[in-house]
Amino acid sequence: MDKLALAPATCLYPAPVVVVSCGVGGRANLITLAWAANVCAEPPQLAIAVRPTRHSHHLIAGEGAFVVNLPAAGHVGAVDFCGTFSGRDADKWAETGLTPVPSAKVPPPRIGEFPVNIECALRHTLPLGSHDLFVGEVLAIHVARSVAGEDGRLDPDRLASVVYGHGRSYHGLGGTLGKAYQARRKGGGR
Amino acid sequence: MDKLALAPATCLYPAPVVVVSCGVGGRANLITLAWAANVCAEPPQLAIAVRPTRHSHHLIAGEGAFVVNLPAAGHVGAVDFCGTFSGRDADKWAETGLTPVPSAKVPPPRIGEFPVNIECALRHTLPLGSHDLFVGEVLAIHVARSVAGEDGRLDPDRLASVVYGHGRSYHGLGGTLGKAYQARRKGGGR
Repeated sequence: MDKLALAPATCLYPAPVVVVSCGVGGRANLITLAWAANVCAEPPQLAIAVRPTRHSHHLIAGEGAFVVNLPAAGHVGAVDFCGTFSGRDADKWAETGLTPVPSAKVPPPRIGEFPVNIECALRHTLPLGSHDLFVGEVLAIHVARSVAGEDGRLDPDRLASVVYGHGRSYHGLGGTLGKAYQARRKGGGR
Repeated sequence: MDKLALAPATCLYPAPVVVVSCGVGGRANLITLAWAANVCAEPPQLAIAVRPTRHSHHLIAGEGAFVVNLPAAGHVGAVDFCGTFSGRDADKWAETGLTPVPSAKVPPPRIGEFPVNIECALRHTLPLGSHDLFVGEVLAIHVARSVAGEDGRLDPDRLASVVYGHGRSYHGLGGTLGKAYQARRKGGGR
């Protein structure tokens, strides 16, 4: 296949879109990130990349904790606001109408309106250059009853996920292309 | 909002789906991962999480390099195969029909058929428990002409991205919910 060489850059998309809540009380802030991933199953950990120049960087490092909040499709306006403005200049809770709700295990509040809240304790900080990588251990998860199945677990068919694409656009999730680990069933003993 | 508390676990989805090529020559292998993210803009770096028990872990650590290959929707069968079987038991190149093509800057080959190949040199290894986090610096990027725009850059509208959802399913990208950084234009000077 004929290919073009591009200059080195960050081009790993699509990605999740999360709003991280950090800091406490009147200083609690919100920051939208697409550079976030699960990184360890046991103990459960996830990682987020944040520029040291960002207001939220100091709040996360200072408190040693943060909450990763997953939006639904209807929250894209608030998501974009929290990714565009600095908490130095705006009270993002007031501007977006989002509600800080006390977390169970960490000092920063979680976002009441978002369907999934993941409370994390900061375990590692890895300076990489323009960004620091924060690795957090998942201490608690809250899921809206509206997106929970009858077994009490998150039902993906009820959650209107938001995806961040190559074109700096927010997207919904498209049609199913297949289930994972089908290969084992089709593979005939391979 | 009324919420349920779930036990701590990894639940940060949707996520990208990538196939990492690693190792060299007849030992070159393929591994499908959804735990992957951009983590630094300058120098450009990305991170992938891999269990030390996986065959590919040794190949990545041993070679100090890997290639992150982004699939198109038509590759889901091969993607699933590479995420289901171990390179100890199968020649995944032969089984999937994917072609190893020499990389420009690193020893492991890239996947000829996949529209985007990101060559990475291993810069950090962070043991986290069940998984190690590998941070790689992007040294070269190859993009199929079929997904490049007239400016030679990747055109997101031509790339049929694959997303991994909460339900362990592969998905296409859904409709656009909005462009990022619209808030600044709408915000009236905030």
